[in-house]
Amino acid sequence: MKKLLTLLLLNSIVGLAQNSDESQLATIYKSALTNSKCYSWLDYLSNSIGSRLSGSDGAQKAVEYTKIQMEALGAFDKVYLQEVMVPKWVRGEKETAYFLDGKKKTVVPICALGGSVATPKAGIMAEIIEVQSMDDLKTLGEAKIKGKIIFFNRPMDASQIEAFRAYFGAGDQRRAGAKEASKYGAIATIVRSLTYRLDDFPHTGWMGYGDIPKEQYIPSAAISTNGAELLSKTLKSNPKLKFYFKQSCKMEDDVLSYNVVGEIKGSEHPEKIIVVGGHLDSWDLADGSHDDGAGCVQSMEVANIFKNIGFKPKNTLRVVLFMNEENGGRGGGKYQELAQKNSENHIFAMESDSGGFTPRGFSLESDAANRKKIANWKSLFEPYYVHVFSEGHAGSDIEPLTSSKIVKAGLLPDSQRYFDYHHAANDTFDAINKRELELGAATMASLIYLVDKYGIE
Amino acid sequence: MKKLLTLLLLNSIVGLAQNSDESQLATIYKSALTNSKCYSWLDYLSNSIGSRLSGSDGAQKAVEYTKIQMEALGAFDKVYLQEVMVPKWVRGEKETAYFLDGKKKTVVPICALGGSVATPKAGIMAEIIEVQSMDDLKTLGEAKIKGKIIFFNRPMDASQIEAFRAYFGAGDQRRAGAKEASKYGAIATIVRSLTYRLDDFPHTGWMGYGDIPKEQYIPSAAISTNGAELLSKTLKSNPKLKFYFKQSCKMEDDVLSYNVVGEIKGSEHPEKIIVVGGHLDSWDLADGSHDDGAGCVQSMEVANIFKNIGFKPKNTLRVVLFMNEENGGRGGGKYQELAQKNSENHIFAMESDSGGFTPRGFSLESDAANRKKIANWKSLFEPYYVHVFSEGHAGSDIEPLTSSKIVKAGLLPDSQRYFDYHHAANDTFDAINKRELELGAATMASLIYLVDKYGIE
Repeated sequence: MKKLLTLLLLNSIVGLAQNSDESQLATIYKSALTNSKCYSWLDYLSNSIGSRLSGSDGAQKAVEYTKIQMEALGAFDKVYLQEVMVPKWVRGEKETAYFLDGKKKTVVPICALGGSVATPKAGIMAEIIEVQSMDDLKTLGEAKIKGKIIFFNRPMDASQIEAFRAYFGAGDQRRAGAKEASKYGAIATIVRSLTYRLDDFPHTGWMGYGDIPKEQYIPSAAISTNGAELLSKTLKSNPKLKFYFKQSCKMEDDVLSYNVVGEIKGSEHPEKIIVVGGHLDSWDLADGSHDDGAGCVQSMEVANIFKNIGFKPKNTLRVVLFMNEENGGRGGGKYQELAQKNSENHIFAMESDSGGFTPRGFSLESDAANRKKIANWKSLFEPYYVHVFSEGHAGSDIEPLTSSKIVKAGLLPDSQRYFDYHHAANDTFDAINKRELELGAATMASLIYLVDKYGIE
Repeated sequence: MKKLLTLLLLNSIVGLAQNSDESQLATIYKSALTNSKCYSWLDYLSNSIGSRLSGSDGAQKAVEYTKIQMEALGAFDKVYLQEVMVPKWVRGEKETAYFLDGKKKTVVPICALGGSVATPKAGIMAEIIEVQSMDDLKTLGEAKIKGKIIFFNRPMDASQIEAFRAYFGAGDQRRAGAKEASKYGAIATIVRSLTYRLDDFPHTGWMGYGDIPKEQYIPSAAISTNGAELLSKTLKSNPKLKFYFKQSCKMEDDVLSYNVVGEIKGSEHPEKIIVVGGHLDSWDLADGSHDDGAGCVQSMEVANIFKNIGFKPKNTLRVVLFMNEENGGRGGGKYQELAQKNSENHIFAMESDSGGFTPRGFSLESDAANRKKIANWKSLFEPYYVHVFSEGHAGSDIEPLTSSKIVKAGLLPDSQRYFDYHHAANDTFDAINKRELELGAATMASLIYLVDKYGIE
């Protein structure tokens, strides 16, 4: 009987806790939807500053602007910068490309991939061979590839429900295509843009040469999907057509840049640290409103929400705007380096870097005990249509972060539209919906509130 | 022991059934994402035909186009039209509006509400009083309202998670504002557009005069949210400012139009009917790509998917494109009238009329037994991030439909962006994402497949 009473009492305590959490989450979501700053912050970042490639003026202005905004918010005990040296890649003048089918010249939209070398000043003109994969290179062999341009044209797999899965599935062509094709004597690579949409935007993104010798670096560019379709179709009738392109991008010396950090000292466990962040750098073709202006202002909004609802975290909360996710990951590396140097204890890290769309859930990196603990909170999120608690990559900037025991979570927004804009000239503020952005911030604040309250196992 | 064996056997049969359903749903989603026609159908409806207000040329062209497309699909045993007389309201020339603050003239974007009468030819100029609700009219009373314009300015409640709830919460101002204000002697009403966004699009939509005498009908128009904010702000400093607007809309005689019906005869229970549909009419300001071109092409896509995967329904399946949902509901009424006349037995009706965004679930009208039955299928939908099985309104066109036992379901897409476009000039094809549209069609086809296979209780 006593056991039963204890059980009843325990149940009612658990019930009360759930009720108070329910009401706290309701307060968090209401604050985000009616009293947020994230949308106007993003408006400024996107429309008054613009693109923020590492080492650019835009990146520096974004550091200064977000630092001032975080200071002005009055939510942080301190706001500071972490120095980090970043690569500086510059696109140079606008790229040009066309193909010649007999005497017919067809111009196609391309852009240099980030990290690529330039073409010779006069450009490159050569025959072009379409392939679908690295295996195709092996099959063709050096005899057929030498002196040619390789055209990687495998589309993202439309049958995947999660667009990110399809993106990673096709991404080797962009990331490693040039490096691999160079080994067979190719003189350049042209890569189908990583998007489901058929349109005229070329999508840039990081590519690397790995450890091949510098003299074997070959220029690599992305072509729009419409351009890729047209080129592929024309190649079928004329495999000997000539492709021309010209780009003048180059890698300059590293420059000094910064992570921006806002810190709220924990009221009970100041030595335990929770991190939430996004990356402040973007590609150079657009504002980067979704990638990742959204994640930055959502992370800042978490602090704004907590201030507005009068919630003081027990653990130390840091909002971190990382520099250089796109082409180096130096900011994430630097954050970890300093954390290790200062023997910091991070218990939880969250990143938003999948676009500012309606939140669907979280992608968790966790041990079994904490996964179970977090799964128990799922019902609290269901009124907000946040249902997905899956295992997977939490975020690139928090990837290097290690600690004695740390749980990581990535915000999972709806992914269907993301690659319509990703790394392309249309990743601009008008593609952002204010409420979707705010719901993402509320979802992040809610999980941080729960982790702060109940700790990790 | 025998009982246990039976149980084990039963479990394994249930398991097998679930597995075969799992694989059938996977086939359905794959077909939708890789082999659909809905996006190109919608492209034609939106970009080659355009707006489709009941009684307009566009509506007639849409009837003809969709009938031809359904016939060409080869999925139906018959495709036919149901005659229905529909109201014909015409907007006339573009509306104009401004307010005079002293000598300062500020032009604001307005549009007549559907069903409204015109202003006098020279327009209306009068003082304007801002109210938030019908109760405010009572408080003000006839003495203060008589001879004035009433400006309904209660925004949609941003704290609602579901945008539709906020829409219905603010919708009385548009639907019944003129009728109520007229009773106090108002000479016109201006209504804040039903959208969360602050922008320059006025949003039209149906309004009615109820049973007030015809001579008391007063003109009613929607004002853009930016216009409403500016007007409200200026009224605070100058409550005597004059508002002017002019519109020349009118109701003409009813005209003949049609529901478009495609029918696949059931292989086992041809007498049991499943209906899936959307409405073919739209408002006149835009293509109506989301409202409800999307629902029409998704319903047609259900038949295309079934054809592509070789699935023959046991029950009769009808794809119905209803006419006149926006300003009369005559098509839905006619469908029910004919069903009753022909003593038809409808077991299930589904409607898609909430936009072509990523599907989140279903809104069900069902008895407890079938609700439970459908809830048991929930796990089949989770791989597609379709988690929400809620109780609620299934759709306006299937609302009149009755039968001895019928379950109804509305597709529930993500609602956050819907009212950015709803009934406004920007509800156009570029606001549609192909994959989101296709995922909606697959979600509809999946539930229909399950209902067809397992029947209703």
